[in-house]
Amino acid sequence: MALNKTLRPGLIQLRVLDLDQTLNFYKNVLGLNEVCRTEDGRVCLKAYDEFDHHSVTLRLAEEPGFDYAAFKVDSEETLEKMAEAVEAFGYQTDVVPANSNQPGFGKRIGFTISTGHRLEIYADVELAPQIPETRNPNIWTEEPRGMRAQRLDHFLLYGPNIAEAERFCKEVFGMFVPEVCNTPDGKRLAAWVTSSNKPHDLAFVEYDKPGKMHHVGFLLQDWNDVGHAADIMAINHLKQDIGPTRHAITRGQTIYFWEPSGNRIEVYAGGYTAYPDNPQRVWDSEQLGRGLFYYEGEMIPSFLQIIT
Amino acid sequence: MALNKTLRPGLIQLRVLDLDQTLNFYKNVLGLNEVCRTEDGRVCLKAYDEFDHHSVTLRLAEEPGFDYAAFKVDSEETLEKMAEAVEAFGYQTDVVPANSNQPGFGKRIGFTISTGHRLEIYADVELAPQIPETRNPNIWTEEPRGMRAQRLDHFLLYGPNIAEAERFCKEVFGMFVPEVCNTPDGKRLAAWVTSSNKPHDLAFVEYDKPGKMHHVGFLLQDWNDVGHAADIMAINHLKQDIGPTRHAITRGQTIYFWEPSGNRIEVYAGGYTAYPDNPQRVWDSEQLGRGLFYYEGEMIPSFLQIIT
Amino acid sequence: MALNKTLRPGLIQLRVLDLDQTLNFYKNVLGLNEVCRTEDGRVCLKAYDEFDHHSVTLRLAEEPGFDYAAFKVDSEETLEKMAEAVEAFGYQTDVVPANSNQPGFGKRIGFTISTGHRLEIYADVELAPQIPETRNPNIWTEEPRGMRAQRLDHFLLYGPNIAEAERFCKEVFGMFVPEVCNTPDGKRLAAWVTSSNKPHDLAFVEYDKPGKMHHVGFLLQDWNDVGHAADIMAINHLKQDIGPTRHAITRGQTIYFWEPSGNRIEVYAGGYTAYPDNPQRVWDSEQLGRGLFYYEGEMIPSFLQIIT
Amino acid sequence: MALNKTLRPGLIQLRVLDLDQTLNFYKNVLGLNEVCRTEDGRVCLKAYDEFDHHSVTLRLAEEPGFDYAAFKVDSEETLEKMAEAVEAFGYQTDVVPANSNQPGFGKRIGFTISTGHRLEIYADVELAPQIPETRNPNIWTEEPRGMRAQRLDHFLLYGPNIAEAERFCKEVFGMFVPEVCNTPDGKRLAAWVTSSNKPHDLAFVEYDKPGKMHHVGFLLQDWNDVGHAADIMAINHLKQDIGPTRHAITRGQTIYFWEPSGNRIEVYAGGYTAYPDNPQRVWDSEQLGRGLFYYEGEMIPSFLQIIT
Repeated sequence: MALNKTLRPGLIQLRVLDLDQTLNFYKNVLGLNEVCRTEDGRVCLKAYDEFDHHSVTLRLAEEPGFDYAAFKVDSEETLEKMAEAVEAFGYQTDVVPANSNQPGFGKRIGFTISTGHRLEIYADVELAPQIPETRNPNIWTEEPRGMRAQRLDHFLLYGPNIAEAERFCKEVFGMFVPEVCNTPDGKRLAAWVTSSNKPHDLAFVEYDKPGKMHHVGFLLQDWNDVGHAADIMAINHLKQDIGPTRHAITRGQTIYFWEPSGNRIEVYAGGYTAYPDNPQRVWDSEQLGRGLFYYEGEMIPSFLQIIT
Repeated sequence: MALNKTLRPGLIQLRVLDLDQTLNFYKNVLGLNEVCRTEDGRVCLKAYDEFDHHSVTLRLAEEPGFDYAAFKVDSEETLEKMAEAVEAFGYQTDVVPANSNQPGFGKRIGFTISTGHRLEIYADVELAPQIPETRNPNIWTEEPRGMRAQRLDHFLLYGPNIAEAERFCKEVFGMFVPEVCNTPDGKRLAAWVTSSNKPHDLAFVEYDKPGKMHHVGFLLQDWNDVGHAADIMAINHLKQDIGPTRHAITRGQTIYFWEPSGNRIEVYAGGYTAYPDNPQRVWDSEQLGRGLFYYEGEMIPSFLQIIT
Repeated sequence: MALNKTLRPGLIQLRVLDLDQTLNFYKNVLGLNEVCRTEDGRVCLKAYDEFDHHSVTLRLAEEPGFDYAAFKVDSEETLEKMAEAVEAFGYQTDVVPANSNQPGFGKRIGFTISTGHRLEIYADVELAPQIPETRNPNIWTEEPRGMRAQRLDHFLLYGPNIAEAERFCKEVFGMFVPEVCNTPDGKRLAAWVTSSNKPHDLAFVEYDKPGKMHHVGFLLQDWNDVGHAADIMAINHLKQDIGPTRHAITRGQTIYFWEPSGNRIEVYAGGYTAYPDNPQRVWDSEQLGRGLFYYEGEMIPSFLQIIT
Repeated sequence: MALNKTLRPGLIQLRVLDLDQTLNFYKNVLGLNEVCRTEDGRVCLKAYDEFDHHSVTLRLAEEPGFDYAAFKVDSEETLEKMAEAVEAFGYQTDVVPANSNQPGFGKRIGFTISTGHRLEIYADVELAPQIPETRNPNIWTEEPRGMRAQRLDHFLLYGPNIAEAERFCKEVFGMFVPEVCNTPDGKRLAAWVTSSNKPHDLAFVEYDKPGKMHHVGFLLQDWNDVGHAADIMAINHLKQDIGPTRHAITRGQTIYFWEPSGNRIEVYAGGYTAYPDNPQRVWDSEQLGRGLFYYEGEMIPSFLQIIT
């Protein structure tokens, strides 16, 4: 198989402060659909163009941030082998039984990587109750709402020892690393990591505190939808971090902003077609600002300082 | 590895009638760069966003059309194993030695599939003399010309027994088939086939004559570049087949038109993010017109009639 | 005053066959807002970005088509003087008292021009109940619906003796004529006429039957919204005439299609900034196809044949 | 006439520091064409979509900034009457004879308004040597270069007593004022002023020093070209002030940046269709930041501080 083993980041669970206000954002502003609620009050959502049961779970908490993310793999066999590989890499695994705390999801295997983040893998997930049409399909069944987020796209994690996390993604997940950023003394400062043609499925920035999240990225159709998202953002008085702008890194067109609970969200479009055999793009850390904010040409302080 | 084995369609050789006029199209209108010429007078070109030596070779001939296309695989080991799999599938293979007739390309293994088209596979190719920047890269080194084609994207082949060709792509290339079209009696009329997140790397339409080509598709950035390409097309008096429009199939935004030698070219943007575990989209043949030409809502006669 | 006397086409009354289905189109697909209904059952609508009471009135009838259109002038004084000028030009005028059959509108003066169309002029109209914000305004109060029509933009009339109609627009309305199309023997075949920077407020095509309408045009933001309108059109199974394409004439980006009653609607964006002192653009009739359909490069038969 | 008397800002003369580097910007980056040079070394340029001889003149000087701007009026008769009106308003006029210091321009009448800026009016100007096609025209003759500026659009002036300048524009130029910004005590802080459907031909911000310029704005086709301009800006390492963003004021989509001599340039698209009879939009000064920078939601310090 050409696209196999690790397929994609399929689920992220986020902590939010105020379920009503935040849900309004995810549903009516970002444009996700609510799929279900769990017995313990979490809310499960998905974007209109996703087939799986849900891709975002919101959990009420004292502080915003990242609980965990889960990657879909292509088969039970891969799941078992990958679980062994995780252990062999040196990370302890645990098993979350099917349907135990994420409705519709099969068995998940979890572990904590060097950056302090819990990641999970799973092979089975039910289709969502409402999926894109598959028989003589329209491009969408009803017009996408709000910012028209198409899919959960990627997330950026801050934590220690990203060199190990990057090696883990390559060796265990079978991913590749289209772009990296190094400090003058040659240490990894950031890495963009993917399992497919997308320029990144996840990314890491080196940081002394573990388990931190910089942002979750959702896919938009194109630059025009990035502009439209900015219009939606303005009328909703959402606090923008930066954008509309372009990343030279990944080449995506983008806006960063904060949802009502304080998690940074990215709406993202474009990006090159990544292949594992193409040369890696390498950034010097003093050029990272321009790499991230190609139009501004320099780092913006909030990028490095504000994380959840 | 998550994206592996068959990576992408990396090379297509086309027959053209008039090298000067046609080259002017490929270079100044479509926006490819000329890389080199072969001793026998063929011209090798690439798009600005490709790393490999070249992706399009033009050969002077009496009639326009498709000579062959070649797929890059991820390693010599895959190449050897896949060659065996081709033979096991029942197709005879031949070997084109490195650098023999496509400058910069390593050994290629060729064979003819059920539709009468020669396909090839290769594991090695040199980087082009001029590639996208990789150290603190700009999004492009100089502004893309003409229609700003970013990459060779896909091609659509017409020929007999596409069911076998589709099975070959799955079983030997490890590809998957995001969309198909069936006749009322359940026979395959068309199939869209991919090795990665792209909705198609190649496609087939059932046709009684072997070895025919419907079009070659090049990737544009987005709908705006599709409109821009139409402006470029108009001022160059290129004969348009249809567009700007949208495919419901693949969801791409598109124009079909003819280059000066009569090969149909597509400029293409958008398209969903394909995954092998998502449900296949299925078209009934009486809806194929709407599937192909979502805005027109019906088949256009030239789509089925004019091929090279 | 720099922009004065005749300001704009402010009102059009159309005949429709089926009020419910057609209203659904104008409101939910095109994106107009219903303002009110008249005692005799007509429906008054406006686009979200218009200030005046309403701009489109729909009247149930046996056949679709154009009842009349009305132009706003800048003052009562202009209205009176222009009424005299209409009479002096040779057209009989009548007076429609304020609020008599178009709610919110002041006195209108009507007359029939050479092409057999009733036109009206008026100086007073109430603001709509819901207008764009004017104190620290957002770009819109709620997100535009459907195709996101911003304004009634223009209309194209078919009828006899357009040379006289054009002269009337210049001499009485004070308009200018940025583009014309002439037959080989130098007769006017078409004329685009405007009172402001818009490339046209109305247009004429020479035709032997009087009082016919080719289309009503509504303004969209840009090419992206033209594409979005095509998506909306496809999901609503509206019959498209042509587009998305570009006019070389006016340079607008456009789709023609039919609303459920059979009136042709245009959604239109772009267009150059017109000025009365710039040279007139002149089309030869054998190039009119390319002028209208720049991407197709030729006339489409329905343009000349299907009118209401 | 509906659009008459004052037609548009047709000429601006700017001071630049380094003719070669700055000319490279205006020609190859912004995309203007050089028309001619004067005997005293000034350079005259125009945008591809303008008909008049030139619209921008660059003069080598010690400091960047605004020399003067000139408005085209519709006739010699208007020119003479307006000159009288200028005098009657209380401003002394002088006459610049035809072709004396702006090649191709007829007689200009100049005066200084309350903000300390020299403005001029003229009725005659030759067509440029190279104008847009007018016989069966293409949308452009050759593809626009660089940022693809279509026209000189507007400029924003800083100076004292803008209330008088605004009154002058209304009373003498016949312009109207679609938007204003007032301080809490009701004083004019800013005004946007136009003679046509464009939301502004010029604008004023109250400032204690006379004769200052904030920016010159050039028209782009749409939001997509705004994004494209940002790509061009980045590769040319031009220092951006802000954008791509949207103004709530005028509703335009925009980037501010500095050309190599330090003059702030705006590339601008969109904007509503302005009419003199529509209600004026009024901004409270504490909302001006949001009015100018709708996506950021607040004032950026450089907007008020950096002028030339």
